[in-house]
Amino acid sequence: MEYFAPPLQALIEEFAKLPGIGNKTAQRLAFYIINQPEEKAQKFANAILNAKKSLCYCKECQNLSDKDLCNICSNPARDHGIICVTESPKDVLQMEKTNEFKGVYHVLHGAISPMDHVGPDDIRIKELVSRVAEGGIREVIMATNPNLEGETTAMYISKLLKPFGVKVTRIAHGVPVGGELEFADEVTLSKALKWRVEL
Amino acid sequence: MEYFAPPLQALIEEFAKLPGIGNKTAQRLAFYIINQPEEKAQKFANAILNAKKSLCYCKECQNLSDKDLCNICSNPARDHGIICVTESPKDVLQMEKTNEFKGVYHVLHGAISPMDHVGPDDIRIKELVSRVAEGGIREVIMATNPNLEGETTAMYISKLLKPFGVKVTRIAHGVPVGGELEFADEVTLSKALKWRVEL
Repeated sequence: MEYFAPPLQALIEEFAKLPGIGNKTAQRLAFYIINQPEEKAQKFANAILNAKKSLCYCKECQNLSDKDLCNICSNPARDHGIICVTESPKDVLQMEKTNEFKGVYHVLHGAISPMDHVGPDDIRIKELVSRVAEGGIREVIMATNPNLEGETTAMYISKLLKPFGVKVTRIAHGVPVGGELEFADEVTLSKALKWRVEL
Repeated sequence: MEYFAPPLQALIEEFAKLPGIGNKTAQRLAFYIINQPEEKAQKFANAILNAKKSLCYCKECQNLSDKDLCNICSNPARDHGIICVTESPKDVLQMEKTNEFKGVYHVLHGAISPMDHVGPDDIRIKELVSRVAEGGIREVIMATNPNLEGETTAMYISKLLKPFGVKVTRIAHGVPVGGELEFADEVTLSKALKWRVEL
């Protein structure tokens, strides 16, 4: 038995398909949309269609972009000799927020994970190798996640790139700033100790 | 500085406008949409537009409907002499789930709340009064929420309807089924005691 009018039920079901959105939340969101003025709902629907239609991958760094070449890759002020390799566009955002990195990026869109049947050919590694093979790259910084998949990916890519004579580095492990030693796990702490720097 | 491509950023911002959706969740949902096939995104956008376009209020019970007269009001098998008054369409859903109520509904779309500047004229009370004035109604069950606003609304409507000689009832207060007395508040418990029934 259906309790809501079909168009409302359909909208609730669409919201419920989103990750982490249960049925109650989907209802709440659908009712919110229903109670919005027509043009607001229109704007939301357009944002979905437009994002889906006009987004592509930057031909250089593979990040999501609405242009052939993304804003970072087309910016002459950035250092095109240093590539920071991340797993996802969100990680690029995190890096950019630091305001520390002036090079360019390469987005893999995933990490090697045999458990999830993700092999080296399923993520954008060969595009990275081509960029390095073209020359002009001084350093590749592996900023994949500090977990098993990220480390594996970093090791794998580093071995692939070594023959080109390019410097491959890995972001440092250590205790998080603002954290407390009491809550740091042993592996992190041992890495923090091993890579200690002189003051 | 914008970090994501504008169409992606626009979609994230649209999601972040939804109630209870923060920026991180909005990012997650937007990325989910981006990674869906085109037709899935299309379906989502259409559900929004369609819900907004084709939903109206049932001319009888004021519930959200895609027809002039909703499925419940147009069902001759329902008892049109008993009206259950609820605050929202969601409450109708809750009532229907019990499978106990065979009458019809009236949705107020809110409750009287001076704190929120919601007066009797801001919710659909006069439509309810018209229905009762037309005659043929034996009982009006007030199923507004068991909180201050809901009780106030129930009292207010009951006074309005009394002159028509209609029976106005209120859903019972008591301890929730499956709950534990230990966690019942005193007010609920005293109501449960007062309205005890013989076994």
